[in-house]
Formats: sequence, structure tokens, C-alpha cells
Amino acid sequence: MNDQVNHYLEQNADRFVDELKEFLRIPTVSADPACKPHMTRGAEFVYRQFSNLGFQAEIVPTAGHPIVYAEWLKSPGAPTVMVYGHYDVQPADPLDLWTTPPFEPTLRNGCLYARGATDDKGQVFTHIKSAESWLRTLGKLPVNLKYVIEGEEEVGSRNLEDFLNARKKRLQCDVAVVSDTSQYGPGQPAITYGLRGILAVEVTVTGPKKDLHSGVFGGSVANPASGLAKLIASLHDERGRVRIPGFYDAVTPLTETERQQFRDLGFDEAAFKAELGIAEVAGEEGFSTQERRWARPTCEVNGMFGGYTGAGPKTIVPSKATVKLTCRLVPSQDPVVLTDALHKYLKSQCPPSLKFEFTSYHGCPAFVFDPNSPYIEAASEAIREAWGVDRVRLIREGGSIPVVQTFKDVLGLDTLLLGWGQNTDNLHSPDEHFSVADFHRGIKASAILWQKLAEMSHSPSVGTANRIC
Amino acid sequence: MNDQVNHYLEQNADRFVDELKEFLRIPTVSADPACKPHMTRGAEFVYRQFSNLGFQAEIVPTAGHPIVYAEWLKSPGAPTVMVYGHYDVQPADPLDLWTTPPFEPTLRNGCLYARGATDDKGQVFTHIKSAESWLRTLGKLPVNLKYVIEGEEEVGSRNLEDFLNARKKRLQCDVAVVSDTSQYGPGQPAITYGLRGILAVEVTVTGPKKDLHSGVFGGSVANPASGLAKLIASLHDERGRVRIPGFYDAVTPLTETERQQFRDLGFDEAAFKAELGIAEVAGEEGFSTQERRWARPTCEVNGMFGGYTGAGPKTIVPSKATVKLTCRLVPSQDPVVLTDALHKYLKSQCPPSLKFEFTSYHGCPAFVFDPNSPYIEAASEAIREAWGVDRVRLIREGGSIPVVQTFKDVLGLDTLLLGWGQNTDNLHSPDEHFSVADFHRGIKASAILWQKLAEMSHSPSVGTANRIC
Repeated sequence: MNDQVNHYLEQNADRFVDELKEFLRIPTVSADPACKPHMTRGAEFVYRQFSNLGFQAEIVPTAGHPIVYAEWLKSPGAPTVMVYGHYDVQPADPLDLWTTPPFEPTLRNGCLYARGATDDKGQVFTHIKSAESWLRTLGKLPVNLKYVIEGEEEVGSRNLEDFLNARKKRLQCDVAVVSDTSQYGPGQPAITYGLRGILAVEVTVTGPKKDLHSGVFGGSVANPASGLAKLIASLHDERGRVRIPGFYDAVTPLTETERQQFRDLGFDEAAFKAELGIAEVAGEEGFSTQERRWARPTCEVNGMFGGYTGAGPKTIVPSKATVKLTCRLVPSQDPVVLTDALHKYLKSQCPPSLKFEFTSYHGCPAFVFDPNSPYIEAASEAIREAWGVDRVRLIREGGSIPVVQTFKDVLGLDTLLLGWGQNTDNLHSPDEHFSVADFHRGIKASAILWQKLAEMSHSPSVGTANRIC
Repeated sequence: MNDQVNHYLEQNADRFVDELKEFLRIPTVSADPACKPHMTRGAEFVYRQFSNLGFQAEIVPTAGHPIVYAEWLKSPGAPTVMVYGHYDVQPADPLDLWTTPPFEPTLRNGCLYARGATDDKGQVFTHIKSAESWLRTLGKLPVNLKYVIEGEEEVGSRNLEDFLNARKKRLQCDVAVVSDTSQYGPGQPAITYGLRGILAVEVTVTGPKKDLHSGVFGGSVANPASGLAKLIASLHDERGRVRIPGFYDAVTPLTETERQQFRDLGFDEAAFKAELGIAEVAGEEGFSTQERRWARPTCEVNGMFGGYTGAGPKTIVPSKATVKLTCRLVPSQDPVVLTDALHKYLKSQCPPSLKFEFTSYHGCPAFVFDPNSPYIEAASEAIREAWGVDRVRLIREGGSIPVVQTFKDVLGLDTLLLGWGQNTDNLHSPDEHFSVADFHRGIKASAILWQKLAEMSHSPSVGTANRIC
């Protein structure tokens, strides 16, 4: 890569970490209405990053939290790259399981600990600092860049599509880059060519209109917590398969070639179990752990609650009980169709003595990017150089990034998923963290990527990337 | 009843309500460690009631919350009556469902609204004010009285048995009186001759050692919330019967005579459903609602929780999930044996991929008092006079008062269960309340009862009361 740019990265490494810490101190929990003022501060922080570099930047209000948009378009003839990321984070609870407070970023064992460190503040920041390294040294970038940094990724990106639609023309690009995934393991950088889709719902069943004394009334009215437990229990059969009628109808079976590729990546089950603190792996019968995580659909309880949840006993029949569910989807499964199937199935399982309420939150289908595309090759070269390794793994991911589908639908864009994090970074969990070395390697890979994409523009294969799901 | 006593009751009616309000303002939630200072204030309030009347009174420390003990023994030759009650209350949550704050007693529609209004501060207070009415008018009581007012009834009376054992000799009495139950309906006073027993447990199942991202890990590890739901769902069969092996083995079947008595009491199912806001009654197949509530054993979820319980979605696999369960027991069922059976059954249902933890809280067997005893007759006369009715119903109750069994086991005492409340008083629920008219009638009935019990001491049938379970 360019020596001046490289030198700049080395000289400013510590400051980049300090700035990231400042970013992480803002508790931008998009799901929590109490965090609204912090969301504004978060957007302003991101905006200043761009305006200070001479980007044309703005904070775009939405019906929810604002989107920061910034563009630098002074490389005529060079390709235009969309960078997407999000400044919002997951709720931090349970707070008592954090070693240090979630919004007081702390360096420990070479990692930065804070909510959002890896998901996604730390990762999106790499693409901002890479642009800075070009602009502060050579005064220009080898490509044109358009950044969309939103504040609602953790609550379903509910205003992003409207934003993209409203600026459809202005947002035309050649390819999108997103860093919100993981490497395959420490020192094993990877490009994620497939993601699972998602659908998210909440179900509440209500019995008596208020909590009742379980002695006086117990046994004579339907208990909504028991009823909900039966609904939840009805979601899986003895073989770990999801019982929703039609759930597997559209699933494209894994080919033997793909299953072999998964096996070739190597997987240490003993280490996996030790890391998670589990006695046994579990899941759908007949599939390996990697297949279950990357390529098989699921239906998971994310949370459930009903009745008394404090200390000690309380002798009541609860009035209501609630479960939060998400299904992970694989290519060809339709979240709208399956949300409807889930709704119908659970409702059919609910006894008439309980009231049934169903809320659908958000959904997106799964995504697969052609692993032979020249964009993948350009990204692989950048990563190999930044990490100093011979091999970049092509992997799939169990998580969902709905925006990838939105970019395809609205802008016709394919997305390069370049994950600098690790699966063990505790994203969505207490003690979320991000390796400082990976943060710096990510900035470097990003800086090289702008060059590689610029060079690629002269090759005949531009524009052949295809989503193959 | 004695005219002077009656006059005193009428003259002081409003002050009695004011004093009860003062009692209700103290948030004596025994389950909540944060309420410890209030528990002390509650005990002191009760202590002052007795010391002001010339009782020999003391606040007795225990390993938990203190017990207030008070005695007046200046009627030699007259029977000695134990009065038991509790100054602790259930937790007040969910707070947002209270019309007025739980610890700011408020008069509305002839009722006093506050946590503890009926369970048990309002009811136990009637027996204190009845003693006051004798002592402040005639300077003496027709019987000897020993009061045990504890602060841990809502958390299993865990230090009461030690207290009774330590003072076994001093606490000898002829009969016990407890007002912690309900009338059959408004204007339909009742004596409760049977109670269900109880066992209370908590089960926690743990999967991964921390919450995991449901995209990255979902489908490859056992979800403890799903696992717990299966355990809960396994507790009942399709006919509403409890599936714990041996659960019904010791149950004495209801006789046809008793079932007919239940039917003769009359029961308005439409009103019951409207009051609770339910579309259908539910429960064990083949039994009426009254049988299900009073004379059939149950297994109820009191609370369950696991994973994310805040607003909106959160895409995790929870680390653990917990359920709080109570079983109501009928005569001959042994809580120790059945706690063990429940433990074994649930453990056998838990998959090896989840860690299983079981906590047993407390238990007591069911209780039945001989409905033909002269004590029951004395109490019936007192109640008929105070309420001005011709009939006092003999009923059973679905709730449990473990102390009734403890009094029998430790002191050989039978207990008169004289309920002044209503089942619709929202005990253990938001908007708990107690009819002010019933409060005054309860004081009057108690004042008459002391006289009736004194008269009974001259009859040959004293001491023939027998517990028949």
C-alpha cells in the first residue's frame, strides 16, 4: 500500500483508539426510549468525523433515530463505494455481568471492552479512519465514497428503506462494504458470503385480567404462563426440528460440496463447548454445529416472562405471559410467509381460555454473494496484505444483516461483508469487546481496499457480482 | 353482647380505621430485603397496640423478621385463646396496575385500598380492637388471650416453628383463632373448615454461561428458555391433570355428600368469569370450579423469566431461565414426598445439554377441622350476631395457612378460621382492599366470640375439637 498512508496509520494508531473510546462512551441504545438524547449525540459524533475530513455530510432526521450520510466524490471515473454501518448498540443488560461498565470503554488483554466495541462502532470506525489516512496524507481518495451510518440497526432498520428510496439516485454506487461480521477465528480473517435471514415476533397470552391468588383461584382458571410454555414447547419436535407447518418447504438443501467446504474449514467442538460453558452441543438432528449455525433455519426464544420475577416465592396465577421469538432463515425462505405461518401455528395451539396477541417486529431473507466475484478477490487481496496471511476464508454467518437485502432491493447493490471481529467478542452479551490489533488491521485493510477497488475498475469484470440465493 | 362494649365499638369506629391506615402505610414486604427497616417499624406498631392496652408484650427477634408476642392472662378458669396473624404483606408489584399507591391507604366505594388491607393487617387488627373494646370499657376480658403476630407469613413462616417450640409451655392454649381467609360472598359470612396445603419450589435451567447472539450461535446450543418451557409443559396432561408420578396417590377422593354440599352453596359461574375477565373456566377434567379451588390439588406457575424482558426485540439465546412453581395440596398429600417427586420428575425431563437447579421454599399439608366441633358453634353464634344473619356457611378454601399445621404439630392446637374478607378483595394482586363494614363487623364478631368462648368453657364438650384429615 501507499507508504505515506501506511505511515500515517502507524503514527495515529493510539489516537484512533482514543477517538473510538469517545464514540463508545455514548450509550446509543436504540431500543431504549430513555436513550434518545444519546442517539442524537451519537449521530453528531459521527457527523463531525466526516465534516472534519471535508466530506459533504449531514444528519438526516427520520421517524426514528437519525441517519448520518456523508459523501466524497472527487475521483471521477473511479468506482463509487457505499459504506454502511450503525452507531446504535444493543441494550447492555444484564449489567451485573459486566466486568467493567458497558459505557466506560476499558483496555484489557489487548482488547477494548464496551457495548458496541465490535457491533458495530469499532468496525464501522475502521472505514472512517481509512478514509482519513488517505485524505490527511495525499489529500484525496482513490475511489468515491458514500457513507450511510444509521441508528436503528438493532431495532430492525425501520427507517432506512425510506431513506434509501428517497435518495435512490444520489445513492447509486458500484458495490457496498459492511463490516459487521466476524473473522473465522483469531488470525483467520474471512469474507462472509452468506448470511441467515430473520423474522422477529412477540406473543402475549392473557388469562385473568389481573394476577390472582394461586390458592384461592389456582386450578380453576387457565394459567397463561403454563399456556405459553405449551406454545413454546410446541415449536420443536424431539429431533430439534421446527414444527411450524411449511417451515422447511422452501429451504434449499446444502449440497455435498458445500458441506465438505464447511468441514474443510476445521472446527474445534471441544473449544466451542468450553468457550460457551456448555456440556453438549444441541440442535437439529443430522447436521453439524457449523451447518446448524450458518445454513439451517432456527426458531429461538430470546426472552420470556410472566408473573412474579422477584426474589423468593409469590403465590399468584399470573395475568399474562410473553415470549420474544426470532427465527433465523436460510436462502429461499420468505420471512413474510413464515411470520404468517408462525402466527397461525401458535394461535392454533392456544387454548380458547387464553387471549392470544401476536406482534411482528421485522424480517429479512437470507443472503448469499457469489464467492467467485472480482469484488471478493479485491477484498481478499486487501485483507491478506493487512493481516499478512496467505489465505482469506470464505465463510457464511448465522446472523442477519437486513440492510444487505435492502441495498439489493432498493439500489441493486451487492455487499461485501468484511468482518474484523471475532465470534467470541460477546456481541449482544455482557463484556462485549474488540481486539485492538484487529481494529488497526481493519483500518489498514480498508485503506488498501480503496486502492484495490480503484485498480479493479480497469479490469473487464467489473459489475459481474451477483447475489445467488 | 355487652352494651358498653358495643357502644365503645360504635364510638370508636372511625379511629379504628385511622389506626389501620397508619398500619397499612408501613411497607412490610417480607420478601424484599430492602424492606427490612419497615419490618421493624411494622413490629413496633403492633407492639405498641398491645403495650398501650396493658398486655405483657414483646418484640421477639428471630433469624428473619421479628415476631410480636402479647398476652393477657387475668381471667383464671376461663379458656385461653391463641390469636395468630401476620403484619407482613406480599410484594406490591406490578405497581402500574394500582389505582392508588399500595402503601397510601385510600377509602373508595366503602373499601380501604392498600397492600395488606385484607391480607392480613386489616383482619388481624379486628382481634386487637375487640380486646381493646373490652379492656377500655370493663377493664377485663372474658377469656385469656395470647397473640402471636409474625412477619414472615408471606415467605413461609420460616422462623415461627422455632419460636413456638422454644415457648411451647408458655403458649399452651385451648384453641387458636386466625382471620386470614374470606367470607363466602358479600353478606355471606363463613367459617373455613378446610384449607389446601402447599409446596413451593423454583427451578433454573442454564445453557451457555452467558447470553449469546442468536444469529451467531442459534440452532447449535440448547436454548434454556425453550428447555424450561418443555419442563413446564410436561407438568400437565391434556385433561388438566398433574403429571408428576404419584401426585394423586394419597388424595382422599371427595365423597358424594361433600360434592353435594359444595353444590348446595350455590355458585355463579357467569359472575366468576366476569369478575376475573376470563372467557372460560379451566382445570382438571371432571370437577366443578369449587371442587377445583377447594378440594383438588394443583401445580401452578407463579412466575417465569429468562433472557431479554425489556421493550422491543433482542436477538439472544438466553443463558438461563427460571420458573417459580407452587402445588396446592389436599388432605393426605405429603408436601415433602411430593416436593421430592416434583424434583425427580422435572430433573428427568431436563435434557443433558442444560444444567438443572432446584430450590425448595416451604410446604405444609392440607387441613380439615371437624365441622361439628363446639368451637365452630361458638364462632358461628358470634358471627351470626355481628353480621345479623341466620346462617354462617361452612366452607373450604383453596389457599394455605401453614401456621395452622404448625399449631397442631407443635402445640396440639386446633384453629378456627374466621374470614372477614372477600375472595374479590384482590389479595396478592394490585388494588387489594377490605370492606370497611366488614372490618367493623369483624371487630364486633371477635368481641362477641371472647364471650361465647368463655360461656362454652362451662359446657361439657370443651376440648372435643378434632382435626380430621
